[in-house]
This record gives sequence, structure tokens and C-alpha cells, in this order.
Amino acid sequence: MSAAPPSLPTLGVGERVQDTFLVWDVEQRTQADGNPFVILHLANATGRLPTAPFWATELTKVQGLAKGAIVSVIGEVAEYRGGRQLKVTSLRPVPRGMADLARLLPSVGEVEPYWRPLDKWRAQMAPGPWKRAVAACYDDPDFRRDYERCPASTSNHHAQLGGLLKHTVEVAYIAQAIARTCGADWDLLFAGVLLHDIGKLEAYRYDGIFETTERGALLGHVVPGALMLERRLAELAPPLTDHERQLLLHLVLSHHGQLAYGSPVRPMTLEAEILHQADTASAVSANMADALRDPSNFPEGAAQSRSIWSLEHRKVWRGGGA
Amino acid sequence: MSAAPPSLPTLGVGERVQDTFLVWDVEQRTQADGNPFVILHLANATGRLPTAPFWATELTKVQGLAKGAIVSVIGEVAEYRGGRQLKVTSLRPVPRGMADLARLLPSVGEVEPYWRPLDKWRAQMAPGPWKRAVAACYDDPDFRRDYERCPASTSNHHAQLGGLLKHTVEVAYIAQAIARTCGADWDLLFAGVLLHDIGKLEAYRYDGIFETTERGALLGHVVPGALMLERRLAELAPPLTDHERQLLLHLVLSHHGQLAYGSPVRPMTLEAEILHQADTASAVSANMADALRDPSNFPEGAAQSRSIWSLEHRKVWRGGGA
Amino acid sequence: MSAAPPSLPTLGVGERVQDTFLVWDVEQRTQADGNPFVILHLANATGRLPTAPFWATELTKVQGLAKGAIVSVIGEVAEYRGGRQLKVTSLRPVPRGMADLARLLPSVGEVEPYWRPLDKWRAQMAPGPWKRAVAACYDDPDFRRDYERCPASTSNHHAQLGGLLKHTVEVAYIAQAIARTCGADWDLLFAGVLLHDIGKLEAYRYDGIFETTERGALLGHVVPGALMLERRLAELAPPLTDHERQLLLHLVLSHHGQLAYGSPVRPMTLEAEILHQADTASAVSANMADALRDPSNFPEGAAQSRSIWSLEHRKVWRGGGA
Amino acid sequence: MSAAPPSLPTLGVGERVQDTFLVWDVEQRTQADGNPFVILHLANATGRLPTAPFWATELTKVQGLAKGAIVSVIGEVAEYRGGRQLKVTSLRPVPRGMADLARLLPSVGEVEPYWRPLDKWRAQMAPGPWKRAVAACYDDPDFRRDYERCPASTSNHHAQLGGLLKHTVEVAYIAQAIARTCGADWDLLFAGVLLHDIGKLEAYRYDGIFETTERGALLGHVVPGALMLERRLAELAPPLTDHERQLLLHLVLSHHGQLAYGSPVRPMTLEAEILHQADTASAVSANMADALRDPSNFPEGAAQSRSIWSLEHRKVWRGGGA
Amino acid sequence: MSAAPPSLPTLGVGERVQDTFLVWDVEQRTQADGNPFVILHLANATGRLPTAPFWATELTKVQGLAKGAIVSVIGEVAEYRGGRQLKVTSLRPVPRGMADLARLLPSVGEVEPYWRPLDKWRAQMAPGPWKRAVAACYDDPDFRRDYERCPASTSNHHAQLGGLLKHTVEVAYIAQAIARTCGADWDLLFAGVLLHDIGKLEAYRYDGIFETTERGALLGHVVPGALMLERRLAELAPPLTDHERQLLLHLVLSHHGQLAYGSPVRPMTLEAEILHQADTASAVSANMADALRDPSNFPEGAAQSRSIWSLEHRKVWRGGGA
Amino acid sequence: MSAAPPSLPTLGVGERVQDTFLVWDVEQRTQADGNPFVILHLANATGRLPTAPFWATELTKVQGLAKGAIVSVIGEVAEYRGGRQLKVTSLRPVPRGMADLARLLPSVGEVEPYWRPLDKWRAQMAPGPWKRAVAACYDDPDFRRDYERCPASTSNHHAQLGGLLKHTVEVAYIAQAIARTCGADWDLLFAGVLLHDIGKLEAYRYDGIFETTERGALLGHVVPGALMLERRLAELAPPLTDHERQLLLHLVLSHHGQLAYGSPVRPMTLEAEILHQADTASAVSANMADALRDPSNFPEGAAQSRSIWSLEHRKVWRGGGA
Repeated sequence: MSAAPPSLPTLGVGERVQDTFLVWDVEQRTQADGNPFVILHLANATGRLPTAPFWATELTKVQGLAKGAIVSVIGEVAEYRGGRQLKVTSLRPVPRGMADLARLLPSVGEVEPYWRPLDKWRAQMAPGPWKRAVAACYDDPDFRRDYERCPASTSNHHAQLGGLLKHTVEVAYIAQAIARTCGADWDLLFAGVLLHDIGKLEAYRYDGIFETTERGALLGHVVPGALMLERRLAELAPPLTDHERQLLLHLVLSHHGQLAYGSPVRPMTLEAEILHQADTASAVSANMADALRDPSNFPEGAAQSRSIWSLEHRKVWRGGGA
Repeated sequence: MSAAPPSLPTLGVGERVQDTFLVWDVEQRTQADGNPFVILHLANATGRLPTAPFWATELTKVQGLAKGAIVSVIGEVAEYRGGRQLKVTSLRPVPRGMADLARLLPSVGEVEPYWRPLDKWRAQMAPGPWKRAVAACYDDPDFRRDYERCPASTSNHHAQLGGLLKHTVEVAYIAQAIARTCGADWDLLFAGVLLHDIGKLEAYRYDGIFETTERGALLGHVVPGALMLERRLAELAPPLTDHERQLLLHLVLSHHGQLAYGSPVRPMTLEAEILHQADTASAVSANMADALRDPSNFPEGAAQSRSIWSLEHRKVWRGGGA
Repeated sequence: MSAAPPSLPTLGVGERVQDTFLVWDVEQRTQADGNPFVILHLANATGRLPTAPFWATELTKVQGLAKGAIVSVIGEVAEYRGGRQLKVTSLRPVPRGMADLARLLPSVGEVEPYWRPLDKWRAQMAPGPWKRAVAACYDDPDFRRDYERCPASTSNHHAQLGGLLKHTVEVAYIAQAIARTCGADWDLLFAGVLLHDIGKLEAYRYDGIFETTERGALLGHVVPGALMLERRLAELAPPLTDHERQLLLHLVLSHHGQLAYGSPVRPMTLEAEILHQADTASAVSANMADALRDPSNFPEGAAQSRSIWSLEHRKVWRGGGA
Repeated sequence: MSAAPPSLPTLGVGERVQDTFLVWDVEQRTQADGNPFVILHLANATGRLPTAPFWATELTKVQGLAKGAIVSVIGEVAEYRGGRQLKVTSLRPVPRGMADLARLLPSVGEVEPYWRPLDKWRAQMAPGPWKRAVAACYDDPDFRRDYERCPASTSNHHAQLGGLLKHTVEVAYIAQAIARTCGADWDLLFAGVLLHDIGKLEAYRYDGIFETTERGALLGHVVPGALMLERRLAELAPPLTDHERQLLLHLVLSHHGQLAYGSPVRPMTLEAEILHQADTASAVSANMADALRDPSNFPEGAAQSRSIWSLEHRKVWRGGGA
Repeated sequence: MSAAPPSLPTLGVGERVQDTFLVWDVEQRTQADGNPFVILHLANATGRLPTAPFWATELTKVQGLAKGAIVSVIGEVAEYRGGRQLKVTSLRPVPRGMADLARLLPSVGEVEPYWRPLDKWRAQMAPGPWKRAVAACYDDPDFRRDYERCPASTSNHHAQLGGLLKHTVEVAYIAQAIARTCGADWDLLFAGVLLHDIGKLEAYRYDGIFETTERGALLGHVVPGALMLERRLAELAPPLTDHERQLLLHLVLSHHGQLAYGSPVRPMTLEAEILHQADTASAVSANMADALRDPSNFPEGAAQSRSIWSLEHRKVWRGGGA
Repeated sequence: MSAAPPSLPTLGVGERVQDTFLVWDVEQRTQADGNPFVILHLANATGRLPTAPFWATELTKVQGLAKGAIVSVIGEVAEYRGGRQLKVTSLRPVPRGMADLARLLPSVGEVEPYWRPLDKWRAQMAPGPWKRAVAACYDDPDFRRDYERCPASTSNHHAQLGGLLKHTVEVAYIAQAIARTCGADWDLLFAGVLLHDIGKLEAYRYDGIFETTERGALLGHVVPGALMLERRLAELAPPLTDHERQLLLHLVLSHHGQLAYGSPVRPMTLEAEILHQADTASAVSANMADALRDPSNFPEGAAQSRSIWSLEHRKVWRGGGA
């Protein structure tokens, strides 16, 4: 089972499957005659595939299965209304501890290529408050282990294991390009890049299906990031000055750019404005690229997509390149 | 000087004044011939009064005076364009330590009548996390000394020494009335009432003219309140549970009701919703009452006011009562 | 049949039911084979329960039944997809005049506890225009009979028989608390509380399922309230002055607070502002409390609800109390 | 004095003036040395002209004069900063009863050309509720006398004596053209045209400078129109049906088209929608034409205007015609 | 087949049909047992009618049929859930070239009555730039042939063959009425009426079902109109002046009135404002009239419609006339 | 006169000036005694400085001077209310042809450093439609001469000679960084970078003070860019395909991102979205950097600025760096 997981988006009709999957969702429906049936949506790191229905007489097979369960499955891919589904012949729950989550969840893959530039840039920071503030998080192995697994959202841009790390690198590259045009303080800005989304470590759960935690639901991710930063800065000796802490907290709090997008203050410094621009550019262009890649957004054969939720209900156009 | 300060809003033309005042503003203007002149806006706890102009030849008298200075003044009230101004015959700076700020700043007066109901309700809280969380602030004499002086805003509703305390009592009374209609958890709600605005202690400066601090400008007052709460809760032993802390922080963060008004999350619990409703009702009705009381809002003799900034540019109507 | 109606939300599977119900809705659906079937949604004062489907061969049993019909039913509660439905063995229309609507419609129950404080406060009003204006409605037994039955909305907050009366009492309590903080004219404000929603008597139909009338659809409920008030005031001798009538009409017209919420003018007096705040606080906190109590808002086992229409699409969090 | 009033917009520098004027505004200002001075803005039916300043030593001449006073003036037009002002040599108050307001206020001139088409169309209405409803207002000589004098706004479109009548005719012509394209009920629509703005008779004062009344400030003009209509319909025998009254009231209430523009309901019938479209087209195109005609909107020599308040802050372009 | 097409909206149950139809849509659905079925939505110039389902065993009959196909059909109208459907007994594809599209697509009918007033008004234009600009389009037979077929939208107002021409005439009539009230330049305005929507010739496809072209999706219809106008004006000798071209382009670009509605500039000339008002009045009143005529907008027997998308989600009221 | 122009922002009080200046504005004001005076705002490439007033008796010296005139001036810097002004002793108009505009207008300086990267990237484009489209503009020496002088706005970001070129380079750098994160087509995107703002060449005048042209006022700059691109593409042989032209036009039209910001269509391709993000990032960060550098935005000594128009009325914070 250490082999690569079967590629769910590309398995052909008739192919046989025997592997471990994550139950991404349990769809309960009813026939017109009142009899219930269930469809499982199975996932692994490569994507997702629905099963054929478990009819009323087969419901015992899926009894007790909930979102996030892990199952060992044997089955065969069948065609159904122009789509594909997995006809399951055997299904058996797998204890969580025995599964390799990296095989089951969407992932950016190896994280080393993302750590490398970030750590290089960190090494180049001038000694001072920004470098020390960053180290308070990024020198901590526990922080790094969480950070390199956390997704950047539960179902929107970079919703993958490692997605937050990948997003951070993208924001850094874009912020660097903007900073050069207007003479911003790179060390402060880069500290903002590294710290702006740390609240997501507490706002999301990603040890199975991606979900919002109670903390994330009640507090969002922006303020938990500020709270986490204050806790870690409180342990620094000598401490940062009030002024320095406030500039860093301002970067974290204002990075959504607008009050209506959940930032309690708008960017007031050049570095905060650039961080917001770079964060938006990384998120929106990732959403656009994802939307264009996903065939389910397009009516059959169409170049113009359906209205896309993650792009403020815009439609997109594929075949953009000549 | 321990006598009551002279009543600036009601001093008659011709009356002589000899007292200490706060320089609320220094208005620098220029005559058409290019010669500069200065008007001081003097304040004490009763209100404000402008001086007659200090002409070019008298500017040495006001040299070096800035907003927030304290001055000992002798003068006489004169009429000017249907208004009043103070013709100053003597003006002398007073060192800050030697002045009694309570005589110089707008104030709610005695704070004891506001502490009494709050402390009575605190005593009635059931032992538990909400009572302990409140005690972490309200049992601290330093906290109380700041809280009973802090204004609720720098220039909007309850912009007076003690204004925050008065506002807190109002919110408590209103929240109580709402809670009764829908069965909310009063102890949790009352904790929210007491804690929702504590960030203003760090966001405002009120040891002279009221101003926003750097912390207030860069972080607002909502998040500093959450940060202060976390710091104080961190010292409790045994600690509150994560769940309990999150419910309290949610009350603080969501009390503006809308993202566009600076709350990073909207109210999701019954108590958070009630707190928001009560906070708004106290603030808006205070703004409305203040606007109706202030004659400068009304063109001479008019029942309909000018557009009022603090009421979203509404006009108000005086003579509302029959 | 004078016994309490069976509790539809709590009847257990297997229990037998024999009682009169209101047909809240007639759901017409079709099987995939093209055959139609019908599900009735039965209601009484305790809540609602769907029937099992009436299949094509049984449609004669429900022929001619429309929303709002009253039926005598015998059946048994069955389980269905984790929910409950009523398997109907006998169903017979009941003439409207023979049914006790109070047993069939959601209701606040006894209205006397709501009249008591309102009438006490009315008795305490000083003689004068506000007391007389209120009496023009509230001394009329016909008005009272309608007012104590009318719901406060057809499907939103306080959508129960007597809901308008209950809402009025809540608004009065909250308005009182706000008025105390800012010195409003209580008699005028209380008149506004009693009169602000009288247009709902004409805008809603509540002699069966709750519906909007033609008047309500074409004119809303705010302006019909103003029109009704003018008609009743026209019969007073001596009449109120123009000024007095205008202050009262302003309270009625402005109580939604914003033009975009259907008030043709925004509140311009202190009493109008307080009425708006209290009306909103009663409505929104009732919506929030209702949403938290309704298990159908929550995915199974979840603490976070689905998006709630009546709360501007917010999600709410249950388990708010510690 | 029965001669035509002097044309204030075109009087040349050096011309002598001896006539009666309305005091449109009294501008009180102050020299830099603290001395007050006053400029009067004089008006007659042709337009307005400011006086030269009345300096401190001349203030007795204008003592007691307020907005809306009527004065007999002798003076001479002088140049001032590229503009013109009236140097007053004699000024004497005139009792209100002795002045001919038609000579003093901006006016559409003869009203007969506006009554003619309206009365012709009224005569062509089929007997029935709409014709009778219209007659309840338009057969009343008092109503007609007011209606032919009332402006359509106090300072926006058609702010002239007779402006409401002129606007009504314009709306009728435009509504007719729209109605033809989509088969609306012309008699009902025409009744809406005639009745939609009758509330302005109570919302505005126009027996001197144009002002909003207390009724207009507290209730707007839309609802007073509905109230007036109900009062007049209440006297009809036999009465209109509820349905008929509601359709007419809906036309009055919805004519602003949007809740945010002060209509408590949006147009729900074809006739209401057309009335709204025609009303807007008349008002906005009048505002645009007025803005283009007024040289004070344009920086000297410029084709592009300043931002125009009455056009939602748009700039306009003169020289639009080739 | 040159006979009038059968009236799909009014065919009675039991009537037999034998004719050619356009396949407006192919609805693919699935039974609960997983078996697919298909419903065709057939259209001709009179309206639309769905077929009865083609079940799994009949799918070969509709294999290969796509939106926009043309088919020869024999069948009989059946009742189904209170609606009607066509039970198809024979279905055969028809090559596109052999069908008469005018019989198959919704159409305004004869276009001559629309050309007549437009051409008469064109003849009355004074010689000059506006007349020449119009001629550059309207003297070209190819342009006329396209213009008299193009719909004014694909699924909203005037979505019929010839709809754009009909809409143009309506805008002209309404613009004329508005222009008279405020003295606009009719020749310039009429040129704007004729040219404002010419971009729709490139933005829509109407040689079958109505669809947006790639040009329409990527550029909208406003800018393609401006580009088309510039191309045609480039061929005029002598050319129009820059000023003249800019006034015409401004009319085209600003006719949606607001940036948020897709106009890159707001109307700045009187003619542009009138064009916008007339365009809106024609479109919105057509939408309202269409919505009132369409029984599918109304729950059975109801006077109040469902929320209508094309009217900004308003509900409408039928039985508006007395 | 070929020497560097005197540095207006830094000239000390008492320094003598003899040079040529551009009249940026002519401020006409009046003393309280009614006497007019004039202040000139003089500009050169280094910045601006106001003159001392020209009093009534000196007005002949400035007679006939208008915005945009060029003058030769002798004078001395004087202090005035804490600011500086130029006391002019001699002032003489200079014919436009004889002045070196580069010395008189704000400028980015040498343009070669901006051309270099753009031309290098152009050389690296693969042969094909995007390279050819770009060459249609950028191989034309006239186009280049205009492009390297045009400002990016008249008074907002990059309002300097060469500002458009500088902005273009910034957009290119930022777009490159974004494109790398999501795999966009760089050649197409770079073509969009180079072409998106070409309409500004026609929308602005920059042969003196910066102003909007008639074309810019009536059509904006987005659509003139599309029109210019079509004209230039029309001359290419062989021509681009319709599809290729539409993708390029889409980039130009959608680059403002939102309809409300003047783009008639929103970005629908990945390249269009990135172009919009990079354009915004360059503009907003330039505005922020400019605002922080300009001392006139800050009340004396303050770290928090006044509300800044070009940043959506935000306040900014200087001393952002630690």
C-alpha cells in the first residue's frame, strides 16, 4: 500500500480498484417509492469518485460510515450517464491510525521545494525585531510540522495538504515584485508574508476531511493569528517594543484589505497594502486557474463556464490561450 | 481652584473669567492681507468657548501652545456675530501635573452610581467561568481606575471621562430587557457586556484631549480587547476551557454586528446578537439625544437640523415631544 | 376534541393519531415513471408533520384538498429516512366553522399575560394626545380581538397566533430600557410601540394558514398602519393637532429604520429611533432564538447551522452556553 | 409694478434697478478683522442676484430681514470679480399682502397650456373608478389652485411655481409613449400620473421661498399623497372597491421605483412600473437640461462641468450638439 | 408546411400534431433506479412544449440530438400533472437548410411595420453628420437584413427574431416624448437610438436557438457596437470630425446608464441621458408585460407571482387592471 | 537654462530664484473688503510653490495668465504661516515653443531604464499573434515617442511625464511573479501588459498641465484603447483571427476588474485576471507610497494622515518601518 494511490480522475471504465480511500461525503437519498439509498464519495490524494448507489437492501454495508471515515474498498469502474462511478464489491472500515493520510488527501506533494526559498529569505533578513518575530514561529519544529500540512482553505483556493505553505511562497514572490516598484521595507513585509495566515493552523482541521474548527467558526482565522502571534512574542527576551508588535499585528489584521472581507482594520502602511495585494493575487489567480482546469464547471463542450462561486459568481472562458 | 469650573456654555456677555482651561484646539488662520491670527478653543468639564482672535502683534502670547496644553486665563466674555468669545487679557501655561483634569475635561461626573449596579449584578453571577473571567478584569483596582475614566469614544457618543462606564451600564440595562424576551444565558451575556469594550482602554488616550493611540489607529479597539482578555485569562488558575474562552472572545469580536462595521465575525450566538443589539441601541440613542440637545446642529430657529455625521448623515427633528 | 392537540414534534414512531389538522401545504410530486403522488403537511398548534405519500392509486383521497383546508385524520406514525411521517388510514374534510382554529395554528397560548402589562402601562399614561390616540385603537373590542390573534409575520419571527401581541410587549420592555438611558418621552414612545405594527391586521390573513393579503402585497404593512391610524384619529373629538398626528405617523412610518427596509422616512426623533432599535432587537433576537431551537437548521450532530435566511444568511452556533 | 420684473440674469453692469424683490437668502459673514457684513440674495421670477456687502456700519439697513422677506429696492448693477452684484442705495420692507408673488418667484409662466392637455385627456377617460378617483381631486377648484402653483421640488427639478403641473404633463406624455409599446391600461396609468405627486401640496411651502413643511420633513411626500387620496376617496359615493383603492394607492406608493429612494413598495403592476419610468425620465432629463444651462456649473470656458449634486455627482458635457 | 405553425401554448389535450420543430433544449435526467431518460423541449414561433419522457428503452430515438437541432415530429398532446406534454410517436431529424427558421423561432412577425416609422424619421433628419452616420449602417442591405432578424436579448426582453428592431422603434417613440419635454437635439438623439445596440448583431447568434457568441461573452455588446460604428464611420468621405464621432460613441457607450450595468462611462449629454432613460423604459416595461402574461410565473390561482429574475427578483401582481 | 531646475520643494527661505516655470493653477480670491487678489501656483519638474498674493493694485502683472502658461520669473522665497511662498519681483510670459517642457513638468526622468526590460521581454516573445500585435504599436516610433511621455493619470498615481511607461514596467514585473504561480500564458499576458493602457495616449493631454481630453471625458481610456488596438490590428497582414483579436481586446477591456470601476466586462481568462491584479497592485502601492511621502497629508507632527482621496479615503500611518 506504499504504492502511489490510483488516479481517481483518470481511471477508465472497467478498471478494477483495490485500495484505501477517505469517505469525503455520505449522500443519503430516497427513491420515488420512498426507499432510501446511499452514495459514497470516495477520495484520495488524486481526487474523488462517487460509488454506485447502495440500495435499500445493501444499506448495512455502509451503516455507521460518516464523513471522514477511512475504508478499504474493492470495486470496478462503471459508466453512468456519461460519468463514471465505482461499483463496490467489498468495503471495510480501516482504523484511522493504520492509514497513510498523505495518500488519501489532496496534497501539494513534497514540501521541501516550498521551504527552501522561505528559509533562504529568512536567512537573509537583517538581525532585528522582524527576524526575531519570525523565528518565534518558524524555528519551532512543531509549528513547522503543522504549517507544512495545513491547507490554505477548506474548499476554496489551495485546499490541499501543504496548501498554506505553497500559498505563502506565492505571496512572497508576488510581494517581492511589488515591493521593488515602490521601495517598501522588505524585512517587515516578508515577516508579514510569513505570519499573516498562521491563524489557519487553529481555524482548520486537516487530519481527515478539511473542516472549520470551533475556533475558526467563532473567531475566523485573522484574529486567532493575531492572538497566536502575541502569545509567541510574549516569550521573546528581550521583548519587541509596543510599536514593533503593533506594526506586525497590523499586517496580520489588515491583510484582507477591506472590513467587509473580515479585516477589522484596513491597511495603513505600505507593507500592509502590499501584503494584501499579494495575498489577493495569489488567491484569486489560483481560484481562476482551478476553475479553468475543472471540467465540471463547463457545460459539455462549452468554452464559457457556469457561474463560479469562488470567483464572485463570474463565468470564465477556457481556450484563453490562442 | 477646588471650586466648580465656570460654566462655559452659559457664561453671559460681560462676565469676567479667571480659571484654568484645557486648550482643546489651536486654530491658525490668516487675514486677507496675509497676516496670520490664532483663535484658541478653551475647554473645561462644562463645555467649550473660543477666544477672540490673537492678531499678528499678539502671537507671542500663544507661541508654543499646542492642542492639549493647560493654561491659566483671565478674560471677559464678549459678543461676536450672535455668538460669544472670550477676550483674553492674561494667559499663562500651567504645568500638567498641577492641574485637576477632572475640572477640565467633559465628564459624566460621579462614577459611583454606575459602579453600583454593575457590581451588584456581578455579585449575583453564579460561580463559574463567566464570573471568573469578569473578575480577572474587574477585581483589579488598576483596571477599575482606568475603566471609570475612559471615554466611550473620542468625539462621538459618550465622549466624556467615565463615558465608557456609563455606556456599559446602559448596555447592561438594555441587554437585560432583550434577554428576558428570548431566554438568553444572562451570566454569559453580562460577561460580554462587561468585556466587549475593554480594548478602548488601550485604543484611546484621555489624559488631556481625547485622542486615538497608535494601538487604536493600527488595530482598532475590538481586537485589542480580545488580546487583553486573552492575556488576563491566561493568568487564571485553573484556566477556562478553550470552548469557554472562545465563547467570550466571540462576544468581544462580534459586538459591532457587521463585518463592514469592524467586527471580523458576525454574531453567531444568542448572547452575541443581544450584546450587539444593546450596544447599538445605547450608542445610537445617545448620539440622537446629543444631536437634539446641541443648538449648533440647527439653523437659527429651525426644527430640522443639518445633516448629522454621527447619525449616518440623517437630519433630526427637535420639538419631537408635543 | 377540547383536549390538548397531539404534540406533532414529539409523537413517537408507532403512536396512533386521531384528531383534526390544518393542511399547511399540499406537495405534489412525480415518480420517475411519471406517476404523480402527493404528500400533505399537516399542522396543529404544536407544530407540523408530513404524511406518507398518497400514491397514484390513492389520489382520490386527497382530491380537492388545498392549502388551508381542515381535515379529520386517523393514522399512525412511521419512521422514514431517520425522520417521521404519518401513515394515514382515514382522512375526511371538516367544515371550517366546526373546527377550533386555536388548536390548529401555532400560537403563543394565553394572551392575558401579554395584555396585562400593556393595559397597566396604558393606564399610567398622562392624559393627553398620546393616550387618546392609543385609546382610539385599544379601547375598541374589535381591534383587541384582531390584535390578540394576528401573527407578527407570516413565516418569520413570531409567526404565531398572538405573535403580534407578544412582539408588542417585548418591544415595550426593550424600549423602556433604552428610554431610561437617554431621557425620551415615554408616553409618546409607548404610543409608538402600541401603534407601529397595526397595519399588520390588514396585511396578513390568519384565519387558517398565514398569508399576505392583497393589501399587504400591494401596500406593505407600514403604510396601511398609517392609513388605519389616520382613519381612527379622524374620529377623535376634539381632534389631535396636525403636529401631534405627524409625530405619531412618523413613528409608524420610520420604524424599520432604513429606506431600504421599507420605511419611507428614517427616524428623526429620539422616540422614533428608540422604537426602531427596540423593534429590531425583538425581531432579530426572536429569529436567532428560533433558529437555534430548530434542529432542522443543523446538519446532523453539527454545532454550526446551515445559512439561515431570516438572519441575513448568517450561520449560528448552538451550544453557545458553556 | 404690473410691468414685467427686471431680468436679473441679464441686467448689464451700470443698469439702474427699482423694483420689489424676494429675499431668497441672508448671508452673514465676517471680515478677517472680526467685523460682520451681510450679503442679500435677491430673487424675482427671472432669477437671482446678490447685493454688494452691507458693511458693519450699514447693518441697520438689513436688520430684521430674514429669508422670505419682501423688499422694495433701488440700486445699480456693479461688476465684481467677473460677476455682477447690486449696489443698493435704498431698501424698504414690503408687507407680504401687498406684493405680487408671481413676479417674485421662479415660475413656469402661464399654466393654461399645461391644464389643457390634462383636462382633455381626463375628458377622454372611460367612466369608471379611475375617472371618479381623479375627479375627487381635479374637479375641486381649491385643489386646482394649489396644484397649479406648487413646485415639483424645493431646489431640484422643476423648482418653480407651476413646476408640479408642468412635471405632471411631461410624465403624462412620456407614460403615454411607454404605454403604447406594451399595452398598459391607459386610464389607470393616467390616474396614477395625475395622483402620484399630490402629497407635494402638503410637503412643500411655496408662498415665499420654497421650503419643506413639517409634514414633508417627518412623512416625506409619498405617504402624504396616499393619505390625501384616501381622504378624498372616502367621500366618494358609491365608494371604490378595496381592490380599486389598493391599485391606486400602489401607484402612488411605488412611484419612486426602489425602496432606497423612498417608495415603501416596488412597482408590481405594469402601470406602476411605467409611471415610475416616466416620472424618472421627466425628473432626470429636466435636471440634466438645467445643469447644462447653468453657467455656474462650468469652470470658466470649460466644456466639462463640475460634479453635479442633482445628477448623482456626475459631470456633464456642454456643446453636446455638433 | 407553409401553413402557420401549430400554436404550442394553446393546443388542447388530445390534439394531434404533425410538424417541424426546433429542439430548444435536451433535458437528461435519471430515474431513482439509475436508468436515464430524456425530455425534449420543442419550440416553434408560437412558443414551447415539452415531450413526454423518452425512457431508457427509447433513447435511440433521440440519440445525437442536441440543442438547436430541427426535427419533424408526429405526436399527441397529453395531460401531465396539470400541465401538457407531447407524446411523440415519430421523430426524424431535418437538415438545417430545409427548414423555415421563421416558423420555428419566436418572432415579432412582419418587420415592415417597424421599418416604416424608422425610415420615415430617417428621411426627416437634416443633412449632416448624424444623418450620414446613420446611413453608413442603415443604407447597407446586409446590415438591414441582420438587424431585422436579431433579437434584443437571448432570453430576456424582446428575445424574438426581429426583437431588436421592435425594441429600437419603442426606444424611438419614448425618446421622442422625453426629448419634447426638455429640448434635446432630436437628430443626434435619434442617431443614438438607431446605433446604440448595433453591437448585438455580433454579440448574439440567432440562426437557431439564441446564444451569446464568443465576441459577446468576451466583449459584451456595448463595446462591439462602438467598434462596429468606428469601422463604418472610417469609410465615410468626407469623414466626421473627431468631436462628432466622440458624441456618437458616447451615446453608444453610455446607454446602460451606470458603470455597474456595463457602461464604461455614464451619460454626460442630454441626448445620452434620454437615450438611457428610453432604453430602460422599453426593456423594463417589456419584461414586466412578459412576466404578467406568463402563467408559469404564478402559483396556481395566485395573483402574486414568484420572484422574477428579469425584474431584479421582484414579484408582480396580475389582475392589475380593475 | 539647460541647468537643472531649482528644487521647489527644498528651496530655503531667503533664497533667490530666477527661472522658467509652468503656471499649474491660477487661484483667484477676494479680501473681505471685496478687493480681489491672485495667487499663482508655479511648477517645474521638481514640484510646486505658490507665489505671495498679487493684490488688487498688482493684478495687471498676472492679467491674461491661465493654467498651463509658461512664465519667466525672478523672486525670493519668503516664509508664510509656517509655509513658504515666492515673492515675485518680475514675471514675464514665455512663448510655449521656447520652453523646455521636460524641465517644467513632473517626470520620471530618463526613460531608457524603462524601455530596456520591456524591449528585452518583447524580443523573447515567441513569434505569433501576440508578438505581432505588440509590434503593431511598439515598433512605431511615433507610438513610442508618445508612450514614453504620457503620464499614467492626470493627478493620481504616476502623474508624471513617463509615468505610463514606468507603470507598464511595474505591471510587467508583478504580472510575471503572479504568472509563475499559476502557469499563465506569459506571451499573451505580456501583450496585455503592453496594450492595456494605450488608450491613455488619447485620453490625456500632457503638453503642459495634465488634463483629460474631450475623448477621455466622453469615452474614458479603456474603450479608446480598444479602438486604437483595432485600428492598428486592422493594418496587419496577415490579420489576426477573430479569436485572437477578441482575447486581446478582452484583456484591454477587463483590466479594471469590476464593472463599477469602468470595465465593461470582468476578467474571464487567467491572463486577464492576472493583468488586473498586477495593474491594481502597481497603482495602489504607488498611491500609498506617494501618500506617505507627501508631508501635506499629515497634520503637523502626526503619524496618522488625513483621509486620502486616492486611497478610498483611508488614513495612512507613517513611521511604518521600525
